[in-house]
Amino acid sequence: MSYSINMNINYIDLETPTIICVVNETDAKNLGVLPDDRLIITNPINKKYVAAVVDISKKNIKQGDIGISPSLKKELELDGHKIVKVERAEKPNSFNYIKRKIEGKQLTFEEIKEFVDDVKHNRLSTIELTSFITAVKINGYSIDETYAMARNISDNGKKLELNVDGTIVDKHSIGGINGRATMIVVPIIANFPELYMPKTSSRAITSPAGTADSMEVLADVNLDSETLKEVVEKTHGSIVWGGSFDFAPVDDKIIQIERPLRIDPQGQVIASVLSKKLSVGAEKLVIDVPTGKDMKVKSLKEAEDLASKFVSVGKKLGMDVKGIITNANSPCGNTFGCSLEAKSVLETLEGKVYDNLGEKSCELAGYLLEMSNVVQKGEGIKKAKSILKTGKALHKFKEIINAQGKRIDNSKDIKYAEYSIDILSKSEGVIQNQSVYDFISIAIGAGAPFDKDAGIEIKQRLNSSISKGDVLFTIYANNKDKLKYAETLAKKLMPMKLEDIVLEEIN
Amino acid sequence: MSYSINMNINYIDLETPTIICVVNETDAKNLGVLPDDRLIITNPINKKYVAAVVDISKKNIKQGDIGISPSLKKELELDGHKIVKVERAEKPNSFNYIKRKIEGKQLTFEEIKEFVDDVKHNRLSTIELTSFITAVKINGYSIDETYAMARNISDNGKKLELNVDGTIVDKHSIGGINGRATMIVVPIIANFPELYMPKTSSRAITSPAGTADSMEVLADVNLDSETLKEVVEKTHGSIVWGGSFDFAPVDDKIIQIERPLRIDPQGQVIASVLSKKLSVGAEKLVIDVPTGKDMKVKSLKEAEDLASKFVSVGKKLGMDVKGIITNANSPCGNTFGCSLEAKSVLETLEGKVYDNLGEKSCELAGYLLEMSNVVQKGEGIKKAKSILKTGKALHKFKEIINAQGKRIDNSKDIKYAEYSIDILSKSEGVIQNQSVYDFISIAIGAGAPFDKDAGIEIKQRLNSSISKGDVLFTIYANNKDKLKYAETLAKKLMPMKLEDIVLEEIN
Repeated sequence: MSYSINMNINYIDLETPTIICVVNETDAKNLGVLPDDRLIITNPINKKYVAAVVDISKKNIKQGDIGISPSLKKELELDGHKIVKVERAEKPNSFNYIKRKIEGKQLTFEEIKEFVDDVKHNRLSTIELTSFITAVKINGYSIDETYAMARNISDNGKKLELNVDGTIVDKHSIGGINGRATMIVVPIIANFPELYMPKTSSRAITSPAGTADSMEVLADVNLDSETLKEVVEKTHGSIVWGGSFDFAPVDDKIIQIERPLRIDPQGQVIASVLSKKLSVGAEKLVIDVPTGKDMKVKSLKEAEDLASKFVSVGKKLGMDVKGIITNANSPCGNTFGCSLEAKSVLETLEGKVYDNLGEKSCELAGYLLEMSNVVQKGEGIKKAKSILKTGKALHKFKEIINAQGKRIDNSKDIKYAEYSIDILSKSEGVIQNQSVYDFISIAIGAGAPFDKDAGIEIKQRLNSSISKGDVLFTIYANNKDKLKYAETLAKKLMPMKLEDIVLEEIN
Repeated sequence: MSYSINMNINYIDLETPTIICVVNETDAKNLGVLPDDRLIITNPINKKYVAAVVDISKKNIKQGDIGISPSLKKELELDGHKIVKVERAEKPNSFNYIKRKIEGKQLTFEEIKEFVDDVKHNRLSTIELTSFITAVKINGYSIDETYAMARNISDNGKKLELNVDGTIVDKHSIGGINGRATMIVVPIIANFPELYMPKTSSRAITSPAGTADSMEVLADVNLDSETLKEVVEKTHGSIVWGGSFDFAPVDDKIIQIERPLRIDPQGQVIASVLSKKLSVGAEKLVIDVPTGKDMKVKSLKEAEDLASKFVSVGKKLGMDVKGIITNANSPCGNTFGCSLEAKSVLETLEGKVYDNLGEKSCELAGYLLEMSNVVQKGEGIKKAKSILKTGKALHKFKEIINAQGKRIDNSKDIKYAEYSIDILSKSEGVIQNQSVYDFISIAIGAGAPFDKDAGIEIKQRLNSSISKGDVLFTIYANNKDKLKYAETLAKKLMPMKLEDIVLEEIN
C-alpha cells in the first residue's frame, strides 16, 4: 500500500522522449516526489496504470491537476475521463542497473532484458539513459553483456522473415571511410543462386554520404518490409534504408543519446550492429574495420580487438562472423558525396574504373563466398572479380535497381551540382598524403549530404607526380556561399600533401 | 568565416535549463546541425551573438523560421526584431573537457574555469552535463581539480562581505543523520566576541528535515544578504536558508543533475561544500562526517578518506579545516521532522534534555573554539558545555531568533501534528538497534518535511529494557491516510530491534 490521491486530468499537448506527467510544485512535495522521480497513474475505470516520470511545473499546472500527455492518455486508454489516481512510485529496477554500471559491475542477461524493455517503453529519463551510456563508455561491456544487449535489442524489434532456401549473408562497415563498397558487394553476391543478401543501410549523419543516400540517387530505398521481402526473394539482394523497418527501436533511442555526445561505446556498437544482422536473419557476416589515422579505429591493435569481439559475440548469437581490417589511410575510390559516390560505384560496375573501391569490394565479397562454401578456400576474390569484370554484377545491380524502383542505372546520367571549382596545385611534387578527414569536412562544407549532388571528385592518385597548376580535386555545390566556404576550407586544410621529388641538389 | 543564413524570428514561450533555439528539420540539415549541436545567432543591429543549443522541430517551426526563447531574446537584446543571422557553431571547448573526463584524464585550473563559466551561462545541454557528472563519479577529481572546482564555483557566485574584526568560523555536516546540531553550535560560538558564524543551511530534499526547515519553525530564514549581514554583525551568528543568496549558481545547476541520479561524486561534494564556505569568508571550518551503516559514509576508512580530502582542498583554498568523524549508528537526539527536531534543539538549550545531540554539538563547538585559539587545546568541549549549561547559549539563540524574525523561542510553544499513533512493543527485551534509515522512511511517509509538524518522537533509548506494550515511538501526521501509511511502514520495518534479556533457561 502507499499514499495516493485523486487528481484532475489536464490533457496537455507535450511530447517528450520519456513518458512524463506534469504536477504542481506543491503537489509534488505532498506526494514526496522530486524531478525525474515517478508517479504511478491509474485509470480508475479500467484499472490500467503507468509509471510516468515527473515533470514539475511552477505555473502551468495548478494544484490538484495533473498534466497528461497524448502518449500517456493513449497508454491509460483515457477518453474524456476527468480523474486519475496518483501515487509515488519507486524508481524502476533499471535505475539500479545504471548505478551498477557506474560501479563497474556486470549485468546479467535478465537485467539487460529488463533494461532494454524499460528503454523500449520510454520508462527511463534522458538523464538516466545518458548516465548509463557514459558509464558503459567508461566501464565497457563483457562479451556476455554485449551478447545480451544484441539479443534483446533484436527481440524487441521487428524481423525480416525471408521465405528462401539458401544462405543469408551480410556485411557491415564500421564507417568513417568514403566509397560505397556495399553497392558492389551486394550485386556480386546476389549472382549466386544459393545466397541472399538483404542489405539494410543507414543515411549519413556526420559524413557526406551514407550508403542509403547514395543508393537513393539510383533507386527507391524507402521500402516497406513486404516489398523488401519480395525484392530479396526475387533478385537475391537489396540495398535499402534500414530506418523504416523498426528492427531496433531500442537502439534508435540509445543512438539519440550517443550522437550528441559523439561517443560510441565499443560494446554498444557491436550490439547495435549485430542486433540488426540478427533481425534480417544473417548467418554469414563480414565486418569491415577501416583502420587509419583519420578513422574511428586508428591502430591495428584497436582494430584486432574490435574485430575479435565481433567474432566472439557473433558466435554466441549463432552467427559466423569474420572481421576484415582494411587500410583506410587514403580515400576509397575518388569521390565524396551521395551522387558522386554513386557515380564511382556505377563506373566500377561498368568496367570504366578499377581502383581500391573495386578491389576492396571484391575482397569483401570473396570472403563471403568462401564462408558460404560456394567457392573453394582461396578462390573467393578471383570469383568475385570475374563476376565484376564480366558485367554480371552490373546486370544484377540493374535488376535490383529495377526491383526497388529505378531512378538512374547508368553513370552518364548522374547529375553534377550547379557550381564547381577546381583546386590547383601550387607546386610540383609527388602526392604523399590524402586526408580522408579533411575531404569529409570540405564535402560537408559544400553542402553534402543535404545537397545530394554536392561533394568532391579527386583528380590525382596517391604517389602520382604532378606539376604546378594541375587540378588536384574539384568541389561541387548547389549554393554559391557553400562553394565559397568549401573552397576556403580546402585552401586552409589542404587535404593533399605534396613531397618534393628532388629532395636535395648537390652542387 | 562560415556559411550563414538569415532566419525569421518566431518568439516562443519555452524555457529550458539550457539556452536553446528551435529550427525546422530541413533548415537543420541545410545548416549541418544535429540535435544538441549549436547555432550562433546574431542580432544584425547590435551585432550581439549567442551560441544556442539546437532543438529540432518537425512541425511547430516552419522552414525559414527560428524559435527564440524569452531568455535568448533577452541575451540578444531583441525587441520587435524580425530577423537574425544564423550559422553553425562548433561545440564549446567544455565539450572536449567532458570527453577528457570520460577518458580518465585530469583538467587544468583554466579548463575547469571555462567549464564552470559555460555551466553558469547555460551553454551546456542536459545530456552533456549528465555525461560529465557521471564521468566524474566514475573517474573522480584530483585534489587540484577539486580545488579548481571549488574556487571557480565560488568566484562565479555572490559573496557575503562581513564588515567584522574577528574570525569567521563555520561547520558542515555531510548529512544523512537527524538532529540539528548546527542550531546548538551556532549560539555557543556566537557567545565569543572574537568569533562570527554566518551559517547558511539547506532545506530537506530526501530527509524529513533540513536545518533551514527546522530553524524556520522558530524564525524567518529567508533573509536577503543585507539583513543577513546585519544579523551576523550584531549577534555574531545566524542560521538561514542558503538557497536565496545565489552563492553558487553553478553548483545549483550541477545538483539538478546529481539529484535525479542519486549520485554525489566525492570531489564534487567537497567542491560544493567548500565553495559555499569560501563565499561566506570562513577561515576555520569543522566538517562533521556522520558514519554508520545507514549513512552515505558507511565505514571509518571511507570517512577518513573523505575527511582528509576536505582538509587538503581546504588548505589550498587558504582555509583551516578539521574533519570530525561522528558515530551515526543511532539517531542523534530523539526526533525526526522539522518541528520535532526544533523542539529537541530548544529542550537541549533550555537544559531539559542532554543526550547525544547536545554532546555532539558541544564536541563540534569545542573543536571550533580550539582551532580559533579562543580556548586552550583540550579545553574546547568543556567550555562549550559550560556555555550550554549556564543558559548562555539559549540566551544567544533567542537573540539570533529575534534578529532574524521571531516565531517561537520556547519548546512548550511548538505544535504537534493533529493526529498521532503510539507504536508499542510486542515483547519484552533490550533495545539493541535503532535504524536511522527506517525512521527517516517512516517520518517521510507521515508527511515530513512537506508537513512541518509531521514526524517521529522516539520514547526509548538504546540499551533500555522494556516490557511488552511499552510505547517505542510516536508518529505524528496532519493527514489520516499518511498516518495510516506511516504506521503500516513502521510495523513492516520495525526500526527498533529488541534482544531478549534472558538468552537461555537452564532447567
